[in-house]
Amino acid sequence: MKKNPRFAIVLSGCGRADGSEIHEATCAMLSIDCLGSTYQCFAPNINQAMVVNHITGELMDEERNVLIESARLARGNILPLRDFNVKDFDAIVFPGGLGAVTNWCDFKIAGVNCDVDASVQKAIVDSQKNGVVIGAMCIAPVVIAKVLGNIGVHVTIGNDKNVANAILRTGAIHEDRGVTEVCVDEIRKVVTTPAYMLASSIKEVCEGADNMIKAMIKLIEK
Amino acid sequence: MKKNPRFAIVLSGCGRADGSEIHEATCAMLSIDCLGSTYQCFAPNINQAMVVNHITGELMDEERNVLIESARLARGNILPLRDFNVKDFDAIVFPGGLGAVTNWCDFKIAGVNCDVDASVQKAIVDSQKNGVVIGAMCIAPVVIAKVLGNIGVHVTIGNDKNVANAILRTGAIHEDRGVTEVCVDEIRKVVTTPAYMLASSIKEVCEGADNMIKAMIKLIEK
Repeated sequence: MKKNPRFAIVLSGCGRADGSEIHEATCAMLSIDCLGSTYQCFAPNINQAMVVNHITGELMDEERNVLIESARLARGNILPLRDFNVKDFDAIVFPGGLGAVTNWCDFKIAGVNCDVDASVQKAIVDSQKNGVVIGAMCIAPVVIAKVLGNIGVHVTIGNDKNVANAILRTGAIHEDRGVTEVCVDEIRKVVTTPAYMLASSIKEVCEGADNMIKAMIKLIEK
Repeated sequence: MKKNPRFAIVLSGCGRADGSEIHEATCAMLSIDCLGSTYQCFAPNINQAMVVNHITGELMDEERNVLIESARLARGNILPLRDFNVKDFDAIVFPGGLGAVTNWCDFKIAGVNCDVDASVQKAIVDSQKNGVVIGAMCIAPVVIAKVLGNIGVHVTIGNDKNVANAILRTGAIHEDRGVTEVCVDEIRKVVTTPAYMLASSIKEVCEGADNMIKAMIKLIEK
């Protein structure tokens, strides 16, 4: 059994409408820490696709950097994703939030034909090839599907028909799941959970994150 | 016994160096939700005193609004603090982060002679006068001391001698506490906990937040 697995957490900004969903990322960190594991945060050093006023939902006429904004969630302890070395980790987590489909890739506007940021693509491919367990929450499994659809990865984003159909078009398999449940792909070592795709409270998000991290640790130990 | 206490959570932005500490605010929300209570977020509708790059600690040449940035933590569900009505709540929580002493007041530069934002001052005074239980984490108890020092409120910020001495100069009493412990002032109905003034991990912050919320609920029930 592996002692104290080392997690990487990849962020896409700081806020559900243009970055990482704060409760999801924080609950993942909390679960990792409570289970005796460690984490290091990463984010791509690129500009955000947009800056959104989280009260009105309107675009703000500003530029913000994904790495710098993600540092708010990481309390300053964060590295550029291009410095991610797969040898240093047992697992890698991708929290949700719209930054996953606007900053890591442009799925929100381009759908399954989206382009994925090179550092995100490399982190996912390197992890899969080296047996590093991948976790993704909320809308982030779309990015895993886009990158690993060619090997038929199984993921869940809950039960949204449109997103599930898009996932199928990448070659990936979508499995419906309840709000705090996980989809475990034992072969490709990928664990996903719906989080705020279905959750109506932070308690549900915490339970789902905890179930995901526990399932990831089980896969690490195999 | 009061069923499902209603909490207000007052935010000061989104990020430890110029707003609310994200883990502290999120862990307070999580504890409230897990204990069967509800929360509504508030923030003053004012500009941040500064915008800080959370990687380098340097000032950024930007303007950001406290209410709009706080909305990131609240997933958009937030109200201006001037709309806080003490009759609608049983308790009010002030998470830490430097926004507490730069946006709610200017304690960081002016010390005990600082000015407190009018909506923050009113929320604290109204709560104390109406028996609404007040909670504060990390550096935020300094603001409670500044406003309620005249009635000799007891608070903790952990064991930092300089900050504790400043608190004493407001007329408040400082009590040393360990990282996840709480200082409970039963007479003035104020509960405080050190959080990241002492914590070295998010697990410790979560435990302290949970201890604070549980102690607040006990005071509500009295």
